[in-house]
Formats: sequence, C-alpha cells, structure tokens
Amino acid sequence: MARKTKKLWEGRFTAPPSRLAEEYTSSLRFDRRLWSYDLRGSEAHCAMLGRQGIIPKKESEKILSGLKKVRKEFLSDRFRFKSSDEDIHSAIERRLTEIAGVAGGHLHTARSRNDQVVLDVRLYLKDVIGDLRVALDEVREALTRLARKHIDVVMPGYTHLQRAQPVLLAHHLLAYYDMLGRDDERFADCRSRVDIMPLGSGALAGVPHPIDRAFVAQQLGFHRVSENSIDAVSDRDFIAEFLAATAILFVHLSRLAADLTLWATTEFGFVEFPDEFSTGSSIMPQKKNPDVAELMRGKTGRVFGSLQAVLTVMKGLPLAYQSDLQEDKEPMFDAADAALTTLRTLAAMLPGLRFAAARMRAAAQGFLLATELADFLAEKGLPFREAHGVVGRVVRHCLKTGKALEELKLAELRRFSKRFDREALARLSPEAAIARRRAPGGTSQENVEKRLAKIGV
Amino acid sequence: MARKTKKLWEGRFTAPPSRLAEEYTSSLRFDRRLWSYDLRGSEAHCAMLGRQGIIPKKESEKILSGLKKVRKEFLSDRFRFKSSDEDIHSAIERRLTEIAGVAGGHLHTARSRNDQVVLDVRLYLKDVIGDLRVALDEVREALTRLARKHIDVVMPGYTHLQRAQPVLLAHHLLAYYDMLGRDDERFADCRSRVDIMPLGSGALAGVPHPIDRAFVAQQLGFHRVSENSIDAVSDRDFIAEFLAATAILFVHLSRLAADLTLWATTEFGFVEFPDEFSTGSSIMPQKKNPDVAELMRGKTGRVFGSLQAVLTVMKGLPLAYQSDLQEDKEPMFDAADAALTTLRTLAAMLPGLRFAAARMRAAAQGFLLATELADFLAEKGLPFREAHGVVGRVVRHCLKTGKALEELKLAELRRFSKRFDREALARLSPEAAIARRRAPGGTSQENVEKRLAKIGV
Amino acid sequence: MARKTKKLWEGRFTAPPSRLAEEYTSSLRFDRRLWSYDLRGSEAHCAMLGRQGIIPKKESEKILSGLKKVRKEFLSDRFRFKSSDEDIHSAIERRLTEIAGVAGGHLHTARSRNDQVVLDVRLYLKDVIGDLRVALDEVREALTRLARKHIDVVMPGYTHLQRAQPVLLAHHLLAYYDMLGRDDERFADCRSRVDIMPLGSGALAGVPHPIDRAFVAQQLGFHRVSENSIDAVSDRDFIAEFLAATAILFVHLSRLAADLTLWATTEFGFVEFPDEFSTGSSIMPQKKNPDVAELMRGKTGRVFGSLQAVLTVMKGLPLAYQSDLQEDKEPMFDAADAALTTLRTLAAMLPGLRFAAARMRAAAQGFLLATELADFLAEKGLPFREAHGVVGRVVRHCLKTGKALEELKLAELRRFSKRFDREALARLSPEAAIARRRAPGGTSQENVEKRLAKIGV
Amino acid sequence: MARKTKKLWEGRFTAPPSRLAEEYTSSLRFDRRLWSYDLRGSEAHCAMLGRQGIIPKKESEKILSGLKKVRKEFLSDRFRFKSSDEDIHSAIERRLTEIAGVAGGHLHTARSRNDQVVLDVRLYLKDVIGDLRVALDEVREALTRLARKHIDVVMPGYTHLQRAQPVLLAHHLLAYYDMLGRDDERFADCRSRVDIMPLGSGALAGVPHPIDRAFVAQQLGFHRVSENSIDAVSDRDFIAEFLAATAILFVHLSRLAADLTLWATTEFGFVEFPDEFSTGSSIMPQKKNPDVAELMRGKTGRVFGSLQAVLTVMKGLPLAYQSDLQEDKEPMFDAADAALTTLRTLAAMLPGLRFAAARMRAAAQGFLLATELADFLAEKGLPFREAHGVVGRVVRHCLKTGKALEELKLAELRRFSKRFDREALARLSPEAAIARRRAPGGTSQENVEKRLAKIGV
Repeated sequence: MARKTKKLWEGRFTAPPSRLAEEYTSSLRFDRRLWSYDLRGSEAHCAMLGRQGIIPKKESEKILSGLKKVRKEFLSDRFRFKSSDEDIHSAIERRLTEIAGVAGGHLHTARSRNDQVVLDVRLYLKDVIGDLRVALDEVREALTRLARKHIDVVMPGYTHLQRAQPVLLAHHLLAYYDMLGRDDERFADCRSRVDIMPLGSGALAGVPHPIDRAFVAQQLGFHRVSENSIDAVSDRDFIAEFLAATAILFVHLSRLAADLTLWATTEFGFVEFPDEFSTGSSIMPQKKNPDVAELMRGKTGRVFGSLQAVLTVMKGLPLAYQSDLQEDKEPMFDAADAALTTLRTLAAMLPGLRFAAARMRAAAQGFLLATELADFLAEKGLPFREAHGVVGRVVRHCLKTGKALEELKLAELRRFSKRFDREALARLSPEAAIARRRAPGGTSQENVEKRLAKIGV
Repeated sequence: MARKTKKLWEGRFTAPPSRLAEEYTSSLRFDRRLWSYDLRGSEAHCAMLGRQGIIPKKESEKILSGLKKVRKEFLSDRFRFKSSDEDIHSAIERRLTEIAGVAGGHLHTARSRNDQVVLDVRLYLKDVIGDLRVALDEVREALTRLARKHIDVVMPGYTHLQRAQPVLLAHHLLAYYDMLGRDDERFADCRSRVDIMPLGSGALAGVPHPIDRAFVAQQLGFHRVSENSIDAVSDRDFIAEFLAATAILFVHLSRLAADLTLWATTEFGFVEFPDEFSTGSSIMPQKKNPDVAELMRGKTGRVFGSLQAVLTVMKGLPLAYQSDLQEDKEPMFDAADAALTTLRTLAAMLPGLRFAAARMRAAAQGFLLATELADFLAEKGLPFREAHGVVGRVVRHCLKTGKALEELKLAELRRFSKRFDREALARLSPEAAIARRRAPGGTSQENVEKRLAKIGV
Repeated sequence: MARKTKKLWEGRFTAPPSRLAEEYTSSLRFDRRLWSYDLRGSEAHCAMLGRQGIIPKKESEKILSGLKKVRKEFLSDRFRFKSSDEDIHSAIERRLTEIAGVAGGHLHTARSRNDQVVLDVRLYLKDVIGDLRVALDEVREALTRLARKHIDVVMPGYTHLQRAQPVLLAHHLLAYYDMLGRDDERFADCRSRVDIMPLGSGALAGVPHPIDRAFVAQQLGFHRVSENSIDAVSDRDFIAEFLAATAILFVHLSRLAADLTLWATTEFGFVEFPDEFSTGSSIMPQKKNPDVAELMRGKTGRVFGSLQAVLTVMKGLPLAYQSDLQEDKEPMFDAADAALTTLRTLAAMLPGLRFAAARMRAAAQGFLLATELADFLAEKGLPFREAHGVVGRVVRHCLKTGKALEELKLAELRRFSKRFDREALARLSPEAAIARRRAPGGTSQENVEKRLAKIGV
Repeated sequence: MARKTKKLWEGRFTAPPSRLAEEYTSSLRFDRRLWSYDLRGSEAHCAMLGRQGIIPKKESEKILSGLKKVRKEFLSDRFRFKSSDEDIHSAIERRLTEIAGVAGGHLHTARSRNDQVVLDVRLYLKDVIGDLRVALDEVREALTRLARKHIDVVMPGYTHLQRAQPVLLAHHLLAYYDMLGRDDERFADCRSRVDIMPLGSGALAGVPHPIDRAFVAQQLGFHRVSENSIDAVSDRDFIAEFLAATAILFVHLSRLAADLTLWATTEFGFVEFPDEFSTGSSIMPQKKNPDVAELMRGKTGRVFGSLQAVLTVMKGLPLAYQSDLQEDKEPMFDAADAALTTLRTLAAMLPGLRFAAARMRAAAQGFLLATELADFLAEKGLPFREAHGVVGRVVRHCLKTGKALEELKLAELRRFSKRFDREALARLSPEAAIARRRAPGGTSQENVEKRLAKIGV
C-alpha cells in the first residue's frame, strides 16, 4: 500500500518516519509564521536562477507564477497544510509542485534548507527590528510629552527607595528616555549583523552553480553577503544578540513598571493609572490594579528565558548545521512578540497617567534637603567630608526633637557650625535645590528644558 | 450604545479596558488548557458550599448541573470563547451563568481567582508529573532491555572523549538508567510539594465563610492543605522546582543525545538509528540524520530558559499576588510538553537502535588496557604512583615505535619493570579488564547481570 | 636542566605543560577549600586499603600518619602549595609523599581523581546543607518571634501593591515562615541525593581490587553507595539540584527584601531598620539605607547565575568525565557562601526591626473593607457576583464624593441595596474583617495563635 | 570606649554597623581591583575642582600629591586596607586623608560614590574590552595562519555530525574567523556605550557646583558625557551588554572546543593536541586529554551565568541607585577574566595543533559526493527534486550492496538515470567537489585563497 507521507529526502530510506518522530521533529507549528519571507526568498532565488540560465527561463517563470498563486492562497487564508509537511519550506515547495508541476522541482537547485531557513529568519528579524524601533520611538515620544506636560512637577528623587534629593518628574522620565535610546542603538547595531544574505551557502560547502548572490541580496534588500558558507548555515549569533538586546530593553521596562506600580500605591499616591489600562478583582470590589505595568515587568522573565534558551542551544555544538538549531525560532518569536506588544501597549498607556503634582511636591521636602546644607558649608570652605558630618549631626538632632529640617531656626543651626547664615536657610526648598543643579546632566529646569528642546518636544 | 465587554469587576470602573490592554492582559490564549482542572475545582468547591449551607442546596445543584453541561461542551469541542473572556476562569463562569442563570453568580462565594488559579495549576501539575513519571519508566525500561539484549557487548569507555578503559555497553546504558532514576525521585519529591490544596485562601487573607477545606482537598485528591493564605496565593516555588527537575532531566537527555549522535558518526560507527527516527537532507541524497536525538538535545535550551523565566518573574516581588505571576504558566506548559514528547519519542526510538558490536569490541583494545598493567605492577608491590609512571613510559615507547600495547613481548615489557611476567600479558584483553572490575558499581558482567536481575529485567 | 613541574601523569608525555595551560587548567585556586574533605576521604580510603590487604598494613599506617601531619599543617596554616600542584588532590598527595616517602605512592591504588573529586564535593555539600538548614531554622525562628511579639498588629494586605484586605502582620510574616519551610524540605530532599558514596568507581569503569565500599561509606557517614561507576564520575545533578534549591530560597529572600525595603520608605513608614543593619550615604547626610536587605535581593542574581552556569556546563557532554566538570565547583561555593551569609545576617537583623503599629493599623482602613460588604450581601442571599457589582458601585460613589467607606450612612448604603442593615456597618473595621477569616489558613488572630502554638513559640 | 570603625556617613547614626552587616555589605574583597581606575578618576576630578576654583588651588594640589603617594603605595604593594574600609573608594579617601590631612576632605566635593563607582567600572571596562579585542585578533590571526598552512587539506564537512560534503580544513577554520569577527564588532559597539563619562551626576540629581564635565571626560579619554544624572547612576546596561557579547563569544569558543575534542578522538583522528596543552590521568597511564579545549567549553557556563546574574540583579529595581547594583562587579570581572585567559591560551595553543591530512582526506570520500551526482543530473535538465530522488536510490543501492559510490560502474549508474555519463564519474572526487564550489562564500580553494589574501595572510 502506498505511503501517504512524502518527504523531500525519502529516496535513500527504506522506512518512513514513525508518527511520533514526525510530530517530534516537525517545525511547521511555529515556522509557518515565516511563510511570506520564505516566498520572498524563493522568488528572488528563482529569478536569479532564471537570469543566470541555471534553470530554463520558462521553468523559472512557471515557478514565479506558481509562487504568486501560493502567496495569494496564504493572503486569503486558503493555503492548506498537510500532515506530511515537515516545515514551512517543504510545505511551500510541495504546494508549488502541485501548482507548477514538474517545474517546481527546479526551485531547490543551488539551495539547501540550511541556507534557506537562515535567510527566512534574517528577513523576519530585519522587519521585526524595524517595527520594534518604531514602537520604541513611540514610547520615547510619549515619555518626552509627559515630561513636557509636567515640566514643573517636583518630586523626591530616591536612592535605596529612600528620599534622597528633589528632582523634576520630567528629569526622572527622561532617564527612561535615555535608557530606551541605548536600546534603540543596540537594536540598530544588531540589525547590521542580521543584514547579511546567506543564500548561496548551500548545505554547508557553498554551491557549484554560477549563482549571482549580489543580485539576490539586492532584490531582498540586504547590504552584505555572508563570506563563509559553513559559518552562514551554522551560526545563530544574530538571534542571540537580538535576544540580549531585548532582554536589556526589558530590564528597562521592568524598572519603569516598578516605578509606576510603586507610585500608584495609596502610600505614594503619585500617579493614577487610566481605567482603560487597569483591571479589577474578582472578589474585592474596590480594587484597581496596574495590571499592564505588572505584566510588562512579568514578561521580563520570558525574555531572559528566551535568551538563555538560544545560548544553551548553541553551546558546544560541532559545526555545521545541527537540528538543535531548529530550536532557535520559538524563543525569537516569543521575545519579539513580547517586546512589540509591550511597547505598543505602553505607548498607549503613558499619556493617560495622571500625576499628583501637589502630593509629589509635598514629599520632596524635609531631610532630602540635607545635602544642600552640606554643600553650603563646603562652599564656605569646610572640607566636604566634615560638612557632611556636621549636617549628619543636624539630622540626628531633628530626628530626636521631631523637627523638620526647614523648621530649624538659624540659631539652632549655628550651634552645629558657625558657617551657617541666612543664605543657608534660603537653600532649604526643593525648587532651590533643583534650580542649583545646573551642571550638565543635572535636574535643573534649565537643563531639562534644554534637553527637551534638543529632542524637539 | 451598550459596551459589549463585561468584566467580573467592572462595577468600580468608569471606563472599560482599552482593546490593547485587554489583549495584553488576557491569559485565555494559554490558560484555556486548564479548563478541565478549573471545572473539577469548581465542582468540588460548589459541592462544599452546598454541603456547608453557605449557598442554598438548590443553587449548588443548579451550578453543578451547569458545570456538567460546560464540561460536555468542552469535551465535544462546542465551547465558544468570547473576546471579553479574560481567562479560563471568567470564561467558564460566564458560560455557567448563561446556562444556570443567576445561580451561577453564587459560585464565586468564598473564592477568589487568586486561590482558584493556583488550584488549577496544582491539579494540572500533579497530573503532568504523574504522566512524566510513567514516561520516564518507559525510557528506563527501554534502556534496561537494551542492556539485557547487549549484555555481551564490549566497548571503550571514554573520559575526555579519549578511550579510557573497556566497559560493557550495558553498563554505559545503565548509567543513564540511574540518572533518570534520580530524576524520577526529584519529580516525586516535587510532587509532594505540588500536592497542597490552596482553595480557601481567598484573595490573600482567607475567607470568612464556614468552609470545609479538608473536604475539598479530599474530593480533589490532595494530601495537604495550605497553612497560610498569603503564602498560598503568592508563591510559585512549586513551579520553579518542577522546572528545575525538568531542566536536570534534560541535562541527562542531552548527554544521551550527545552520546548517540557521536556513536552514529561514520567515524565511531557504533550505532545506527532506525530509519523511522531519522531524517534526510533536502540537498544531500545520502544523508541520514539523527534528528530526533539532536532535537532532544536542542530542547534542553527551552527548558533551561523556562526555569530562568519563572525564577526571574518571581524575583523581588512584594507579597501577595501580583499580575507578574500570570507569566508562570507558559514556561510550565512548554517544559512539560517538551519533557513528555521527548520521553515518549525516546522510549519508542531506543528499541530500534542497532549497535555494531564487533566495531565496538575492536575499539576497546589497545592503550585503554594500560591501567591493567599499572594495576598489575601495583599488585606486585610497586606503589601505584610509580607503577603509573612505568606504564606511562611503556605507552610512550609504543607511540614512538608504532606498536599496540598488546603486541609487546614480555621481554620488551620487562625492560620497563622486572615485575612484569606472563600474567601481565594475560591482562591485556578488554574482557579480562572488564571481568576484573568486580567491586560494586564496576563494569564487570557479573555486576551488571546482578543489577539487571535486581531491576527485574 | 631538570624541569621543576612534576605531574602525576607525566610518564607518557614528551613535553611538560606550557605555563599558560598550567595556569588555565589549574583548579587549585578554588578547590583548596576542599582540603579537609580530601583528607577525610583519603584517610577512609587508606584505612580500607590496609584493612583489605590491598596495600601492606605498614604502608597504610605510614600513610595515615602522614595524612595526620598534613592535616596539622593545614590547621596551623603551614601547608605550602607549589606552583606545580594542579589541584588540591595532587597537592596533598605530593606533600604526603614528601612526608611518608615511597609509601605515599600507594594511596592512589584503587582510586582515580575522577571518583576522588566527586567524593570531596559530596562531603562538602553534605556539610553545607547541614549548615544552611541550621541557618534557615534561625531565620524561621526569628520570624515566628517577630510574629509572636506583634501578634496584635493589623496591617493592609496587598495584592498588585494595592491595599486589598486587612491582615495581621504576624500572618504576613508567617507566609515567609512557610516559604522557608519548603526550602528546608528541598534542601533535605537534595541532601538525600548528595549522600551517595562514589569512591570505588575509579576513572569510570570501577576498580579491580577487593575494596570494601560499604566500610568507606560508613566511615564517612554516607547512607548510600553509588550503583554505577560511569554515572558516579560523570554526573553532577546533585550540584544542580542544590543550586536550584538555593535559587528558590533566594526567590523567597528577595521577596522579603522587597517587602521590607518597601515598608521602610517614608511613604509606607511601616518599619524601621536597626542602625546596625543600615548604611549611610557619602554625600547625603540624612540617608539611612536598608543596605542589607537590598544586597540580599541583589545576591539573587548571582545564585540564579550559578544555577544556569552548572546546567550549561553539563548540557550535551558525552559520558563519562570531562574537564568541563571542573567548572562545577565555583558556582557551588559561591551560592553556598551567598546563602549562608545572607541567612545568618538576616537572622541577626530581623529582631531589630521596629514596626510602626499605629501607622499600619491606620492604613488598614478604608476601601479594603469593601469585600466585607460584598460578603455581607452574599450572606443575605445575593449571588456573590451581583454583590460584587453592587459594592463596586458603592466604591465608585465614594471615589466621586470623596468619602471613606466607613463614613457612609446606612441610608446611603441602602440606596445601592436594600439588603444592607446595621450589621453591615459593624463589619467595617479591620479587626472585624480579620477576626472573621477563621477558615483554616486565614488571617484571624485565632488561626495565627493556633499556628504559633503549633510551631511552639 | 571609642569605636574603631569610622564610616564616611556616620554623623546621622546612633549605632555603628554590626560586624555581620559590615562584612555582608563590604565590597572591598572584589572592588579593590578598581584601585587604579579610582585613582585616575579622583585625579581628574580633583584637577577639575581646582581649575574651576571649586576648591582652593592649594588644597587640590595637596590632594593630587596625596593621590600620587597612594598610587605608589599600591604599585609597591604597600597599601594597607583597614577592616573599616567599606569599599575601594572609602579606603582610598581614608588613606588620602591620613596623608594629606584635612585637605583630603575636599575631594568628595561635587561627587558621590554613586557616580564615582560607575566611573571606575566604565574606565575598567574600556580597558578590558581593548585587551579582549587584542586577544581576539591573536586568535583570529592564529586561525588564518593555520588555514594558510593547511590550504590543501581536504576534509569531510559535517551536518548533524554526519559526513555531508567535502570542504577545505581552511574553510572550516575561517568559519571561526568570521564568527570571532562578529564578536569583535559586538565588543566595539558595546565599547561605544561604555565610553560615557558619568561623573557630575552626583548621588542622582546632578551637582550644584560649576564643574567642567567636558574637561574631566577629556582627561580620562571619554568621548561622551552622560546626559541624565538619574540614568547615569542607576543603569548598568553597558555591563549586561558586555556580558552578552562575552556569552556569544563563548558560544563560538565552545563550538570550536567541541570540534577540536571531536577531531582529537581516536575514532576521528584528525588532530593531535600539543603535549604542552594536554593533561594526563592520575590513573590511566596512556591518557592524553584535551583539557584546555574542554575547559574552554566548560567556562561557557560561568559566562552565561554571569550574564543571567546581572540581568536578574537589575530586573524590577525602582530608580535610582540601589545597593543591589553592588552585585554588578563580580560577574563582570569573572567573565572578563574567563574571556581573556581563554583567548590567550587558545592563541598559544592553536599553532601547535597537528592535523592528520591523509586521514582527513580519506574520510572525505564516499557518500558525501552524492550531491555531486544530483547536481549533475540537475544540470542535465532533471528538476533538482527528482535528481535528489534518483541519487537517493543510488545510495540505497550502495548501502545494500556494500559498495562505495565511487566504485559504481557507469552502467550501474545508468540503471538509475540515463542522464549519467562519463563526466558524472569524474565528479566523484572530493577535490572536484570542492573546486566546483566557486560561488562566493563556497569552499573552493580559489575562494579560500582569495579570502586569505584579503585578510592579508
């Protein structure tokens, strides 16, 4: 009885794969996402084969028209996979042959799945990185708009979660702007290493046909062509690098989420999330949870995991291609999806945040002005280390007597150092402290305005 | 116009979730897998509520019959999700209310999604660990059968991939039997910590109703009841532990894969994979690739990644429940699937391996018998350290003269030590070397036979 | 000129190792920590060799007395390593031979470094796990004492960092008690798999001498003897398991750190750290930072990393021993040190925490009582789902009018549901809410007292 | 009695740190490595303070001369740490004050440890990356020299560890050259993000003094100045990126190690390691183990772990500086050390590898020429897919009859396809197969020569 499952490579085998093995080794479940990239690659490859006379022009035209039909089937959701399809590449080739007949059999000339699959992944990743950078831009723009809108909002800056020194909310938001800016740089750098055209590497040794790799690269928008066929089919460092860049992005997103969920507590009360980006509780009717921010932080886990997954897969594999590499795609897809949806949701959520300016300002008073006093004494000639000690004792005195720093009378202050004078008292406001931090990079409004102007908001 | 999306918790909110947020926070895509566990949990909970008089008996019966209908819909694949369903819990409650009317609204009495979801996961994981242990048993049995079948096959044992000392193939296979045995122990230990009934913890503080947790536990087959409601809804250490056990299992599987793919090289030529568990190449007609084994090793990456994902998610979260925890399920599902399919495929593949006994035996000769000579000298009274040095020089002599160890004449040997005699030469066969390793745990056939008998093969 | 470096194995080689290779492959830098375990192992091995007549009694006695001298040198810090010592094993054997002369050369009879090193690690890890469990006990005891001392302190329970329902501080602290209890279980389970005596496995194949493994095991306090020599020298799953258990412990510690640093903010103001466990700032005189807690959370990173390191090392290694395994020790040491110092510092710090009971109680009022109203309505027969909706609308009304829940008059409440009566108002206190959560595992004082009594505090 | 330990920040505190806390939080054990960077930073900072008139010129000169003395003490190993020194920064400031007296107290003007420590790390990492790139160059050069030296050596190329197609050893070696080239690019990209001068950010808000950051940057050789003070002290993404680049480098090194250890097996017999880079066995006199290569692969684990450690540390931390960040340095040091020593040892080892050209050539014959036949048929007009099938059947025939491909007579071949002719037979040599792979990136000698010429070897 005729066996149903037909594999590209069955010639050499006496027994077909077991159903278990077939299911275990099939990648179709996830690599079907690559269909459009696979088609683009095949079109460019086929055009080149025809152009170079490697296959008859007529055949190449038949194939190209067949591929067009396959594309239409995908676009209209009419493409049907068969259980014998091992992967997206063989599914498309199978269907092409059904459409174009024997001509379809020419498409795999001068090509192997080993270089084909890495081509598809590179095309996909170039697109994804482009999309991610657009989404990153949207988030960064939302941050700068928030900063612009709240340019006057004063808040406590924290270190060790303890109030440290007053800062502008806008300055705090721009810290994230800068972090995400470096993420953008990293994606750009990564993309330059994704942007390498591997087709023509064959299974591992290159191909013996008079192919025109530059033409294929140009057709597909690649700027470089791989220089070593063994390397081209064996390595996935560009995926690991992409995942590393995404992991670092999520470090930043997780920290933003931590800040926002902290600020949204009743205790801080610095920000309210829009209802549209909050969820409730199944049991507690009063709850309004910053679900989106929490999930954004939670997704950090899956991205770190994906990075680790791909690194682990690659570790210690002899060259060249090994089936282990089939495990490169799901972590990549998963991390890319997590990053895109997170950035887009965040960009939509940020404008709706309502900051409680008065509450933030109120929290920016008190001991966080202690550094002002120390700096004052240092200006008056006391070595900073001693000035720090003097003010430390002032603080201890306040704690003992239950007084706020700004409530101290000059006389009281002068008990700790004769260098204190009226001017010292004038320093004890958040606005003054902020305004004085005029050195580049500091939180003064002047600096922040300048930065926003430079960004163009 | 009336808004379509209805949430369990919409009472408090003035605006519905944005579509982006709704998609971002929905867990239905993956937690729908838990439907049968969610139903079991609800049935037990509802039965208890009725039994305790917390809700009217009649209502509880209506709910139970409604749940039965829901179950039938799932089993016959007729259950329809709505876009407004946030997760499997709200989908089922929504459907229940459609079926049972107002009565359905009683089901969530004395329960929160926070304890409900952890119940579902625990029920799922208990099942999965059970399945995994069965699959592990199958692989271990397959290994022992191979060992029994090839009880006479002699092969080189390797350290540093260099031939070291002759061993029995059966002994090598039983090394994996022992590794997987510890994996089994780890799963059993883990299961005892999964086997804790969390329902009754409410959102985080416990519930004020006269519930009977012991009854629910008994209905659902749990042996322990959680002792602290905050801990019960906040912690997922049992998932991390499950993933750690699975990661270690895959360390073992990846090493088996490494051994098998190595042995299947033309150069080693120790084993041939069954055609049914091999794949070919799209370009190289001669290729027969040990695809299944490679993928088994490759899947190690995703499991390590899943472990890292869950650890990362949990790190540094203040108590109690946070939405980050929603990210616990996909890594768990993924690792469980990877483990189950791998073990089952492996169990099916192992019996088909064809070992090349003659080739293995041939490779077990030569320098790997050098330890025999050193041991011989040590027996004759030479301190082992000196004996080692003498035989090292014998080996260097062989390398220089191109002779095999067993080709040396006694006279030649005695140039290195007068302690060598006829008996020394007799030691120079793999079989002799193996037979002498009779101390418990050693590779002698006697030992291996005893072990197999103890295992019952 | 004579080469200085003498290796155990130099007989076969024509050239000595390059200095670079020698430095690169030396493990002495870190494995010297194992000296006492290596000595214990050698003593037991040597006693057995003598007892079994494998080496002359006289020689074994010379060795034992030599080892005693070596031990004294270590204890008095007089042991001198030589640059040629590759590892702690060869350093000790070298020194022994200097002391005991030719007899020392007998010690390595029936032993390989492959089984020796795994013995040392197992002995070390058994000790460490014992120490860790003691330290865990101290932390758990400190937690229960804090709970007992603050048995009356009421605080808001949080989910999503939003106030959810009132709980007892003691209940919150006992959540950590339970988490750490499972950590203790995990360490105990792990220890049972560390507790396996590998000596007698030789290089990989077992040994040909009439050794008595049970005797060695008993001397060294092991309960099991390894059953397969190849497995015994190749696998390090017990280290990975130890690291996984430690990683999960640090998940718990990092969450405790997150809670404490949050509570120590000015905004929460729930706890003050003792000065003795805080640090200041080099620039801001007022700062008091919960440094210890932050570092405790930070150390989570290194432990996760160590786990990943050992898993990665093992992945895909063919059997049996490979030098990659030398990389097993540093992550193990590092994680063990991190865990021990953290637990001990934490146990010392916990008693000094000062909780701000009044502030906590004040924060436990307000909307977190909403569930009480919903439960009330459900008791009165309204399906819980509807009750939830009603109270959600009450909350929205309060938010709009700026009223607290407990300020509502009965008449106002009854506008939302006629089922509300006087009793409903009585429910609106944290103490009432807590007292009602009497179901096992809930936060009622009754439950918590019972639990503490059971623990014995 | 007077307390010995003096902290920079003790003014505010009533109790000194406990010994446990002091030990737990001290970073001196590892950050002392940064002493020279800390001194350089302080020198530039102090010169700027004097230049800008922020501190009196005279004082700045005293400090600079004091720092010079401190440097000398370090260089001559006479610097003595005190147990009260928290970290390298306070140790140096303490010593400076001992030397320069009260003037030393001025040094910390307009600076915080928060910006100081990140400056030190950036200076260190710039140096390390420079060193790494030099070491990478040495390895790459060694690879190209090996390639040049063995330009004629033919070997089997492998996919799935199965012989696939003949390639040049030089081509295989150049695959690693290309991988390491991308590593070099990644390090260069990373360095551009390390090369940012953070000083002037103060604790988090910037400083109020008229500092000249550009001057400091220029003195220290930085090309950029940080733009946001909060970001500058909070983020460590440049360390994570460095570790990611190092992790990917180790993926490549681990694969090279896998190839080399495989080739060094008796079964492959393609390469012999130099004695100088091999080790022996303590028990088996014949062993020669490729220890260096194994350890190189093993060290991959620690580097993956270090990456994970730093990512984990950063995850979910609210801004700005938190003590968790103190955990950034050890993983960085550890990975940098691992990378540097590995690259240097590898560069020294590679030239000593002895390849077995004849054995490699012999292995490159046989079925790996099957693709040649399929390509031949495709050239003759048969669609490639059919050609593949035909040759698959030829291979099956050979397997059944035990013949090598090149032993087939033309008549035999023609039974499978009439398109076969004499020319087909001529294709069946490794040299012919290699020579034909002339398309760019392919393994033909022509290509490889061209590549080597371009590299300049």
